[in-house]
Amino acid sequence: MTGTATEISRGASVSLIVQKFGGTSVGTVDRIRNAAARALATQRAGHQVVVIVSAMAGETNRLLALASELSPLPDAREVDALASTGEQVSAALMALAIQAQGGKARSLLGHQLGIITDSAYTKARIKAIDAQRLHDELADGTIAVVAGFQGVDEAGNITTLGRGGSDTSAVAVAAAVGAACEIFTDVDGVYTTDPNICPTAKKIERISYEEMLELASLGAKVLQIRSVEVAMKYGVPVHVRSSFSEAPGTWVVGEEQSLERVTVTGVALDRNESRVMLVGVDDRPGIVAQAFTALSRENISVDMIIQSPSAHTTPAGPDGAVSRKTDVTFTVTKADLARTQQVMESMRVVVGAREVRYEEDIVKVSIVGLGMRSHAGVAARMFELLAAENINIEAISTSEIKISCLVATRYAELAVRALHDGFGLGTPA
Amino acid sequence: MTGTATEISRGASVSLIVQKFGGTSVGTVDRIRNAAARALATQRAGHQVVVIVSAMAGETNRLLALASELSPLPDAREVDALASTGEQVSAALMALAIQAQGGKARSLLGHQLGIITDSAYTKARIKAIDAQRLHDELADGTIAVVAGFQGVDEAGNITTLGRGGSDTSAVAVAAAVGAACEIFTDVDGVYTTDPNICPTAKKIERISYEEMLELASLGAKVLQIRSVEVAMKYGVPVHVRSSFSEAPGTWVVGEEQSLERVTVTGVALDRNESRVMLVGVDDRPGIVAQAFTALSRENISVDMIIQSPSAHTTPAGPDGAVSRKTDVTFTVTKADLARTQQVMESMRVVVGAREVRYEEDIVKVSIVGLGMRSHAGVAARMFELLAAENINIEAISTSEIKISCLVATRYAELAVRALHDGFGLGTPA
Repeated sequence: MTGTATEISRGASVSLIVQKFGGTSVGTVDRIRNAAARALATQRAGHQVVVIVSAMAGETNRLLALASELSPLPDAREVDALASTGEQVSAALMALAIQAQGGKARSLLGHQLGIITDSAYTKARIKAIDAQRLHDELADGTIAVVAGFQGVDEAGNITTLGRGGSDTSAVAVAAAVGAACEIFTDVDGVYTTDPNICPTAKKIERISYEEMLELASLGAKVLQIRSVEVAMKYGVPVHVRSSFSEAPGTWVVGEEQSLERVTVTGVALDRNESRVMLVGVDDRPGIVAQAFTALSRENISVDMIIQSPSAHTTPAGPDGAVSRKTDVTFTVTKADLARTQQVMESMRVVVGAREVRYEEDIVKVSIVGLGMRSHAGVAARMFELLAAENINIEAISTSEIKISCLVATRYAELAVRALHDGFGLGTPA
Repeated sequence: MTGTATEISRGASVSLIVQKFGGTSVGTVDRIRNAAARALATQRAGHQVVVIVSAMAGETNRLLALASELSPLPDAREVDALASTGEQVSAALMALAIQAQGGKARSLLGHQLGIITDSAYTKARIKAIDAQRLHDELADGTIAVVAGFQGVDEAGNITTLGRGGSDTSAVAVAAAVGAACEIFTDVDGVYTTDPNICPTAKKIERISYEEMLELASLGAKVLQIRSVEVAMKYGVPVHVRSSFSEAPGTWVVGEEQSLERVTVTGVALDRNESRVMLVGVDDRPGIVAQAFTALSRENISVDMIIQSPSAHTTPAGPDGAVSRKTDVTFTVTKADLARTQQVMESMRVVVGAREVRYEEDIVKVSIVGLGMRSHAGVAARMFELLAAENINIEAISTSEIKISCLVATRYAELAVRALHDGFGLGTPA
């Protein structure tokens, strides 16, 4: 823990550490004891400690299943009142575990700590945290154990922050008190890619907030994306690490604190997307916008959007006018595809599409890295690496620090390995 | 339910009913649905409805077992934070069940309803309830679903009211808003005695608060004793009835509202007492008080106390002084007997007792009835009935509306049946 402490004090000026323990890290009484021991060791090393806990693994699902039994679409206010009990239980048990090991501890719920959110039940956003209350609790050597995931709105209704919201609670509390944040979970950090796919994957020592956000599909398994946004906004250094070992994990930090510029930091695979292609759409201003507005009204999120001139553009007619056509390709999650089809069938005539094609047998492979900004030719190298494996690219989209390709599902693992090792991310054999 | 409504309006002037559902009545999702249907039926009959819920059966024990795993003597504040989640879960689920059946409902926790208690964790007492908040919630046809058992102290810490505390929550809420209180449980009322012992036992239609308190050992199975004290203090009519039938249960009401004066209302059996006998104690002022003060310091509750001249009083000596001796008999719970023995061993010399005898093979049989006050000869009849069965009485104590006898354990059931049928409480054969 000493190594950790040093690193953390580099990021935060006060000797205060926020430690968040996820569902598996508090999944049994024994694991709660282990987590309590870590918090106490951190305190003995000279720090004030705030512990944030998730619900015991499986508990939130158990509670939500009860709600589903009663109603197919349960009232969000009551769902939050229900689900928030999971973290309350963990917080009380963690406080008891710390006390049983000779420490001082008190559990604090959203309404007790003044974690004020908006009233968007099940996906509330934190507006304020009573940092003074927290400092008061800590002043006499008490470890404050805060129930994650929950807050209250201005009227005192219980709200929750959405799945994985305890990460966001932890980062927000760390921001409020100017602390660094340790996220203890069941993996030991963020990897260059999924080790189950690519055995040469290795743990990333430091990664920037921006890269972490782009690596969502890798990162979401270890750190809730919204918590990264909050960390970036307030400059909270976040250390993602394993509950079950003392080894350092991955630091998620500001760009200026991340390591020397490697070109590519990680390779992400997203199996959850499906492709929609509007073929031969009229290329007039506003036409494409209409399609996406209709999707947005249905709360369907669109990820990649690619527009290209269509093969169906007709030659100039007798009046000299060219009927300009364009093809529009976009991706939605597989879960949204059926609803997307409904929307598109009603929009097909409006946008003048000749045809709409749907493809589910597709995955998205992405490379992410701050270094791309200063290294030319990264995209070309990506295409070469895929071509060398005879993998056809179905669509491409790029951002400043990310390049994504759609490829057929059967190439998913091959593409990841080719890119991962081709960009030199693997551990030396 | 119409019959119920009529009876309730006799007790309370406003058309507001508090309905409390115990652990077995909300023990499964199906039972929660049934309870919700009852609340909605009551609303449709023209009443405003407040529902108070206990934790789902077994949940409180599950939570407390987790705490015990972490600590043999867990911190009471954290135990309350932990245990109170059981009722929070029930309240949210009940609100969802009411909504699923087309009603309006909101769950309300202790801190949301302003159920302010003292800070005596695990056995807090209610100091105030925000009745206006409750009226506001009810105004638009919402059924307010209040988590029982819990409150908050002035500092916002979560407190609980002790085992069975949801009954007390219900009666206190009913008192605050001037309502009658229905307690739905897994038995259909208070019986003249335990039907498992005495097959002729019958349901009592109306019973006074005073009798209910004296019948603790019968009544505690259906209604928490402290809730009866609160009901008596505020004159809240309480209807104890089954969740699983429409039949009326037992009304617990003020003396003036109870039925015509029967001599004996019920027969109670308490298997939980043990007898301690101080033989030949110096009969000087203050001596006996010392023994009971010592027990009280150890938090040992004493039930019956009987003092009689001792056979060990010595005749007048040469100086004419009589060494007056007395025997003191008292009862403590079997659970407290070991600690009582420790205290008595250290007190034996102080009080000058010749001997201390302990007896665990003993039960207490009591008859209770307001009618005793005006009927002479009830005690004599009790002794006759026991004598007719050759049951020896080991000790007797009486209060205004109760007579208790200690008898050997082997006579327990026989004594109950003899008294129950001897006082004409049984259903006609």
